[in-house]
Amino acid sequence: MHTRSPWAWGHIERFPSLADRADLALQLEAFLGFPSLGASDPAPPRVPEPRLAIPAALAPFSSAEPMDRARHCYGRCFPDLLRGFQGDFRPAPDLIARPRNDEEVALVLQVAREVGAAVIPYGGGSSVVGGIECAGEGYSGVICLDLERLNRVLEVDRSSLSARIQAGALGPAIEAQLAPLDLTLRHFPQSFEFSTLGGWIATRAGGHFATLYTHIDELVQSVRMLTPTGVWESCRLPASGAGPSPDRLVLGSEGCLGVITEAWMRVRPRPQFRASATISFMEWEAAVEAVRQLSQSGLNPANCRLLDRREAYLHRVSFDGDCLLLLAFESPGLPQSFLLEEAIGIATAAGGSVKDGPHESRRISGETTQEGSAEVWKKAFLDAPYLFSSLVSMGLVVDTFETACTWDRFPTLHANIVRAVRDQMKEQCGTGLISCRFTHVYPDGPAPYYTFIAPGRAGEQMSQWKAIKEAAGEAIHKNGGTITHHHAVGRMHRNVYDRERPEPFARALHAAKRELDPGWILNPGVLIDQKKQDG
Amino acid sequence: MHTRSPWAWGHIERFPSLADRADLALQLEAFLGFPSLGASDPAPPRVPEPRLAIPAALAPFSSAEPMDRARHCYGRCFPDLLRGFQGDFRPAPDLIARPRNDEEVALVLQVAREVGAAVIPYGGGSSVVGGIECAGEGYSGVICLDLERLNRVLEVDRSSLSARIQAGALGPAIEAQLAPLDLTLRHFPQSFEFSTLGGWIATRAGGHFATLYTHIDELVQSVRMLTPTGVWESCRLPASGAGPSPDRLVLGSEGCLGVITEAWMRVRPRPQFRASATISFMEWEAAVEAVRQLSQSGLNPANCRLLDRREAYLHRVSFDGDCLLLLAFESPGLPQSFLLEEAIGIATAAGGSVKDGPHESRRISGETTQEGSAEVWKKAFLDAPYLFSSLVSMGLVVDTFETACTWDRFPTLHANIVRAVRDQMKEQCGTGLISCRFTHVYPDGPAPYYTFIAPGRAGEQMSQWKAIKEAAGEAIHKNGGTITHHHAVGRMHRNVYDRERPEPFARALHAAKRELDPGWILNPGVLIDQKKQDG
Repeated sequence: MHTRSPWAWGHIERFPSLADRADLALQLEAFLGFPSLGASDPAPPRVPEPRLAIPAALAPFSSAEPMDRARHCYGRCFPDLLRGFQGDFRPAPDLIARPRNDEEVALVLQVAREVGAAVIPYGGGSSVVGGIECAGEGYSGVICLDLERLNRVLEVDRSSLSARIQAGALGPAIEAQLAPLDLTLRHFPQSFEFSTLGGWIATRAGGHFATLYTHIDELVQSVRMLTPTGVWESCRLPASGAGPSPDRLVLGSEGCLGVITEAWMRVRPRPQFRASATISFMEWEAAVEAVRQLSQSGLNPANCRLLDRREAYLHRVSFDGDCLLLLAFESPGLPQSFLLEEAIGIATAAGGSVKDGPHESRRISGETTQEGSAEVWKKAFLDAPYLFSSLVSMGLVVDTFETACTWDRFPTLHANIVRAVRDQMKEQCGTGLISCRFTHVYPDGPAPYYTFIAPGRAGEQMSQWKAIKEAAGEAIHKNGGTITHHHAVGRMHRNVYDRERPEPFARALHAAKRELDPGWILNPGVLIDQKKQDG
Repeated sequence: MHTRSPWAWGHIERFPSLADRADLALQLEAFLGFPSLGASDPAPPRVPEPRLAIPAALAPFSSAEPMDRARHCYGRCFPDLLRGFQGDFRPAPDLIARPRNDEEVALVLQVAREVGAAVIPYGGGSSVVGGIECAGEGYSGVICLDLERLNRVLEVDRSSLSARIQAGALGPAIEAQLAPLDLTLRHFPQSFEFSTLGGWIATRAGGHFATLYTHIDELVQSVRMLTPTGVWESCRLPASGAGPSPDRLVLGSEGCLGVITEAWMRVRPRPQFRASATISFMEWEAAVEAVRQLSQSGLNPANCRLLDRREAYLHRVSFDGDCLLLLAFESPGLPQSFLLEEAIGIATAAGGSVKDGPHESRRISGETTQEGSAEVWKKAFLDAPYLFSSLVSMGLVVDTFETACTWDRFPTLHANIVRAVRDQMKEQCGTGLISCRFTHVYPDGPAPYYTFIAPGRAGEQMSQWKAIKEAAGEAIHKNGGTITHHHAVGRMHRNVYDRERPEPFARALHAAKRELDPGWILNPGVLIDQKKQDG
């Protein structure tokens, strides 16, 4: 049995020892060219007294144990990690409710309204945008509604490639229950191990398909969501044109309209054929142009991940200063080499050269393996959140952010983001590094993803981070990007999100919220604010 | 210059003469096995006096000419055609406003609210669900807001394959403006010639792609919509995860939340390569199973249209009693034969045999042509709405309806629909014929499309039609289908739609409508009703 860290990514056992992190600090200095503050150990968690006693009706499935509350306090963005490392768990919820069925979920909503408490729907706690942190101002307390007990695949309709899955199921639990049927949801966000179906739907999570099925949105067949004023359950349908899609209002609602308890999801046969290659480019602009052409080719690769030279370096995939394009095609029944060859043709005509591959593999059982650079990348990708926690513990200012924009705007957007972040890193930290990769691509534009690392000053990391993060958000917004392609809005992105969305849409969403959640108990502060005249 | 018929499909010139329809009547009797009432000519239109004088502010771009009002009275469903043929234009709008820019659209909304008139956003007038017919009860009159003057492609962003297009542009106008750039929107609903971009977006129209890009939804990059309380304009983005999608609330809003005036659309290079084949099946069940497997193969054919034996017969594609599957793949840059071969392999393994093809063609200039059965089908498909008008003029009871459901439910749904419609045709008309085709297919289910034809009794056709149509709607709803895959809801499908959508979603939509259109002037009766306490 593993224990989740109250602040760092994943299990406590995975967090490196002081000695290991001291070694890492030395390596990092050589690698980055600037020192960290050195490794130290996290402060013991300080959790405030609960404001709210556990209501009797919720007692059978609720806890107010301090470490449980600490573990449900934060997501995993930089401010979360920093405060968690420092032992500051002031925003901890007052109690954790773990309903065992829909009736108990409804009971939580009912009791919360009666006692004037806020309710935070909680999946895996991996939000990087402040999606689950609630100070509870104006409420009698905060109830964290942890869906971990709703974790089963309830039903599989093999002929329609569909599965009914409970919202609290974590990624590995879903895949483990589908694997015996040789099926997969194939939604692999970086947070896969510690995020849930309900969380993916509520935040419009991005998975590992680079094209076509980029967001969880496309995989949702129907949703069941409990609102404070009734059950929202859509029909199981492959498609419909009957009015605006109800599911699309649930997708991205971030727990402020209701609690998603289950969904019928589109699953697929596990891929048998896989063809992959890695292409290197000496110039970023040529690589971007190659990806643009690939995105418009109709080939729709399953993987089309472009790493700039710093990204390739940080992820230890390439040290020669080249940009890398990781390409892969997959199919349950059809060899994919011919598609890969076409894609390689486009990429090399645009100035790339083949670094690894082409590889073709056929899965006999278990996972398909990846080769060469792609395998190195995959390991680094999955380890990245663990590394992130370690870096914060060593006093570095480090974060990631992402966006999407049309191709015509990308060169200017990119230049201005890099400039803004560098300027702020210089001003705040003296130096720093920013890297970029494409996580998903569309015929009309890419979804670039940025990582920055800069040296922190003891006690000032929060303000240093804030200045850099705000500069990035402004550069994104002013240059035609969205404030988030798949990290969601939460509380962190509200400032830019409020300017990005159409004003009448904000009013429509507010009106819907007021109708569905008249007590304004659900995840207050996310997406929309209560006005004085509401509730 | 052609003149649109006030009731029949398309231009007056295309409507067959009395002599031609007399010939058709003879052929039909031989073909269907039951007689029509014979051809007669439409009654002269009777248009009531307008209730509302043209407000001075709208006069520069408005008309109250009786034939103009008649032409804007109805869509093109059976009750529309029947009443139009009989000369009954009682629900005609009181005036037609043809704004020349967004400011004039906003002016119509403002004036309408001042004078208490309803506003019906009008594109091509091809609704088959009563989407544009409004009795105007409780209003001082009805203003038809015809967007025909907003008909231009305003801007093309070639690198992002995007075009900014005005909402009133008809299908052919859009394609004609994109063709010199060798681009296409490639959205070809059956109504293509007489429907507009704004209408497609407002009704979530279905195009001619059988997979992946089935609805206009997927082609929308951003939308500009004028609401009575402000401009709703979303950002141009290839994708976003910032809250629920604003565009998805516009898509399917059927003119009740605002007037769409333009949109950035995803366009694509015109296809150069096309591979096609026609597969015949002796048994419907085997054909359905073949299509199910194809839908889950990942091959994503551009065309995957299955015709049952009656459909093949009615469309004069095949007379041997076989079901036909029309398959095609397209690409701007990649020969498609290898994908077609895979698809043929799946279809023949499931019991099909190749009837036509495989054909591969490469376009040099102009349109790609289709071969054999596919060409016959295409002509019949485009002629069908014209034929439909003729059949109504000959006293037949004829209509189409469509749905979508998951694969597991399809056999029961289909059997019950056919039984319900046949039973009602027998009861109401003595006999009749019902046919089925698949217009679109998804990995989790098909979108079946039904046509029925039965002999009418003079003066009773409306009640005969109503009984059959209601039986079809009930059978769809009770067996897990949606009341519409791409025909929209309008006023005709409200009864079933209200039961299909989640109840809290209905309340959310109502709350949004009340916020955006507090005067309840926009397309009253569509999707949602005003409650006593509103407005």
